[in-house]
Amino acid sequence: MNLDFEPERFRRLLSQASEQVLSLYASLPRRRVTHASSPRAVAEPFAGSLPETGMEPETVLRDFIPAIFEHSTLNISPRFFAYIMSGGSQVGILADLLCAGLNVNSAKWHLASAAAEVERTTVRWLGEFIGYRSGAGGALVSGGSEANLYCLRVARDVQAPGVREHGLAGGRALTLYASTETHSCVTKSVEMLGLGSKHLRRVPVGADFRVDVARLEQEVRRDVEAGLTPFCIIGNAGTVNSGAVDDLVALADVAERHGLWFHVDGAYGAAAARVDGARELFRGLERADSVALDPHKWMQVPFEAGCALVRDWDSLRHAFTYSAAYLRARSDNEERWDWMGHTFQLSRAFRALKVWMQLQVYGSRKLQAVIADNLQLMRQLGDEVDAARDFERLAPVTLSILCFRYVPATGRTWDEASLDRLNARLLEECERRGQFFITGTSLGGRTVLRACLVNHRTTQAETRGLLAHLRALGEELVASWERVA
Amino acid sequence: MNLDFEPERFRRLLSQASEQVLSLYASLPRRRVTHASSPRAVAEPFAGSLPETGMEPETVLRDFIPAIFEHSTLNISPRFFAYIMSGGSQVGILADLLCAGLNVNSAKWHLASAAAEVERTTVRWLGEFIGYRSGAGGALVSGGSEANLYCLRVARDVQAPGVREHGLAGGRALTLYASTETHSCVTKSVEMLGLGSKHLRRVPVGADFRVDVARLEQEVRRDVEAGLTPFCIIGNAGTVNSGAVDDLVALADVAERHGLWFHVDGAYGAAAARVDGARELFRGLERADSVALDPHKWMQVPFEAGCALVRDWDSLRHAFTYSAAYLRARSDNEERWDWMGHTFQLSRAFRALKVWMQLQVYGSRKLQAVIADNLQLMRQLGDEVDAARDFERLAPVTLSILCFRYVPATGRTWDEASLDRLNARLLEECERRGQFFITGTSLGGRTVLRACLVNHRTTQAETRGLLAHLRALGEELVASWERVA
Ligand SMILES: Cc1ncc(COP(=O)(O)O)c(C=O)c1O
Ligand SMILES: Cc1ncc(COP(=O)(O)O)c(C=O)c1O
Repeated sequence: MNLDFEPERFRRLLSQASEQVLSLYASLPRRRVTHASSPRAVAEPFAGSLPETGMEPETVLRDFIPAIFEHSTLNISPRFFAYIMSGGSQVGILADLLCAGLNVNSAKWHLASAAAEVERTTVRWLGEFIGYRSGAGGALVSGGSEANLYCLRVARDVQAPGVREHGLAGGRALTLYASTETHSCVTKSVEMLGLGSKHLRRVPVGADFRVDVARLEQEVRRDVEAGLTPFCIIGNAGTVNSGAVDDLVALADVAERHGLWFHVDGAYGAAAARVDGARELFRGLERADSVALDPHKWMQVPFEAGCALVRDWDSLRHAFTYSAAYLRARSDNEERWDWMGHTFQLSRAFRALKVWMQLQVYGSRKLQAVIADNLQLMRQLGDEVDAARDFERLAPVTLSILCFRYVPATGRTWDEASLDRLNARLLEECERRGQFFITGTSLGGRTVLRACLVNHRTTQAETRGLLAHLRALGEELVASWERVA
Repeated sequence: MNLDFEPERFRRLLSQASEQVLSLYASLPRRRVTHASSPRAVAEPFAGSLPETGMEPETVLRDFIPAIFEHSTLNISPRFFAYIMSGGSQVGILADLLCAGLNVNSAKWHLASAAAEVERTTVRWLGEFIGYRSGAGGALVSGGSEANLYCLRVARDVQAPGVREHGLAGGRALTLYASTETHSCVTKSVEMLGLGSKHLRRVPVGADFRVDVARLEQEVRRDVEAGLTPFCIIGNAGTVNSGAVDDLVALADVAERHGLWFHVDGAYGAAAARVDGARELFRGLERADSVALDPHKWMQVPFEAGCALVRDWDSLRHAFTYSAAYLRARSDNEERWDWMGHTFQLSRAFRALKVWMQLQVYGSRKLQAVIADNLQLMRQLGDEVDAARDFERLAPVTLSILCFRYVPATGRTWDEASLDRLNARLLEECERRGQFFITGTSLGGRTVLRACLVNHRTTQAETRGLLAHLRALGEELVASWERVA
């Protein structure tokens, strides 16, 4: 019951799919970033029940893929400024094609020897890319969320020996510390690990959105006095809201003083740690016990590619090695590296291929130049916002995120509530029109526009275009509001 | 700093990579399944440090990919009988190419609307494929390990309300129950969740490797009396060692009597639940509160594709929904389905595409026929082992796993220790030669050969070939042993 195609047919199918990818990229300049179809229209082609008999693959490609492409938001577009999502890379597309073709399982050396070595090298290179300690351990994971989970998992197990076997029940609560600007995946990780979200102390930030280190240390002291067990401090190296980078040196000092694990969430920012114009912000990163990194963000690798880095390999092994009789290979050692001893996953795709090829084909210089370019474009955009009469910047542009809002230059004054509503409408309208995509956030209780750039395809034409587009939409909205009022 | 290639160059690169995949498949019949290179030789091409300047992608494809292919174990080969790994599918290769090309983030409806619908449909279809409850919830994950983690996570949170916020510390220990044959990923999940591996009660099995249900219920009673909090029973629907399927009806009854969550690990076996000749084994599956399923196993989807199914959607939402200001979309509702509320991951690739295309192109009948075919081939192989003078079967062939050993028909009697050594050597030698790949396990303390078939490319030529090959190797080994002795 062989499912393979005749070789000639498979060649034509590969070519048909390749042409679909090629025309997607060729049409990028003309394409909307978002679509405007109704949920019903999007869902309709997929409404049926499980088919008993199949459909020709040529037909599936022809009849379904264009609609799927059309009903997708294109973060590959240079006009995408939402969330923190990169444009991906064409090298990554080649790598994923090869990876699916080879279809090895990166769990064990004797299943995927080259993959094992490629992943070891990739982890090493990623450490070099951000200037982390040489000899660090790590593993590729699905993204920033899982990278943080792995690091906090290792922290928990190192700081609370015996927890793998005995669990947390009955013991004293383990507490950890991070700023209020910390990414939600840290809370999700804390919940996954059974620690309880209330034991993640969320420490206030200053006007620069960096954690108040003195206050953090106070909270550690208070918890110790209360009989709890502080175990970990989390520093942000690029917050998701505004790109703020905590004072990592000061945090490392506090961690050292109290014997705590020092973890850095660099999912967004760490890729910039050795880039001119950002480097200074990341002092202290090398003192972290673990770092979460996310090659599918600023390093332009297609989804999914995250990386958990830890100071030493053994801490990963101690968290994840499990020996089951049926998994015993001929031998496991430094030379024949079994990834399954370092990961929660057992079966694992060869995702290292795309990260390794990205670094091999572009080299660190070009990838860092993309980041430097993005930094500069967003700082310029910040300057333009500062110079504009109808926009207001609401946070420093530390990395490549600009938080701002539209404040109509209409003469009459707008109260905060109206500005919130107006900016929320602006986001909606922008998404509906689909020429640019930008999302918002809330800073100090105010609704803000948040433009984030981690995309190699974006140039000044698009950053300028974004501002002009928002201004035009804003003026339209204000005009129609004033008509109604 | 645009990283894209000129369109014509990208077309040629896609074609170059496609040709490499095509020739891999064309050469499958001639290719070794394993390689015999030294770790040093495998590692050598990847030894350098992070390149500053890049390398032409054509060169990377030409100079590295063939060596990577060569130093890989080919589970795509019909002569692969190790672990539980499928051959993958060419439809899956097309899907992964398209997925990397589109590079959407399946976290939110307004980022990837078509992907959101395709995944909802895929979860529904997977439920239909195995005959699970209609209306069940679920999410695609990286594999069987993560599928079990998700299900146990939901079980923990439903059975211990408040645990997300308060954590486990200070509370009573939560205990769960599964057979000694349970997959190691269940232990790993229990450790991840902070429950402690010692609270996973490993209940003995009978001669058929199915859990002793009476004994399991006794343990539940004992724990309740001891003041612990039993919360979950895990049934195996296809154990990794021998393919045993627990009595799911009896386990569901026990769970119901004691108010426990009933989870079924069907990572390997559940795909056979509606296949003729296996269906009966899975009675009671539909009573599970959650099921771990693994499309990258018997459903022939390339890595990675797992699926966690749960009785109702809300239990997933209650585990994973987190609201952060910057994630607020225009609206979240039944129509505009945000996957991030159902998953631990935030950024997520569109992995549903390959599972959906697999079902759409082949249809349930063909995929079930692959399974039926595998079942029949392995039952036949079991019969051949039974009929042979020099092989001994050591477990029933319930699904597509055959546990057996080589017992030389030499006249002199072999003690158990010598047979263990001989069979271990046989496995090593088989791997070294590379014509077939099979791994071993330990059953009742004895070293056994374990042949597992979940591959659409394998025919009777290969199952017969495997036995003949092992016999020839065995005879060689015995001859050289006797020369030494
Ligand atoms: C600072 C930070 N940490 C973690 C994450 C989570 O990463 P992922 O979406 O890859 O899971 C993000 C995502 O935006 C982030 O910005
Ligand atoms: C019964 C069972 N459960 C879980 C798993 C883990 O699945 P994965 O390797 O996809 O993580 C396996 C893998 O073989 C399995 O056989």
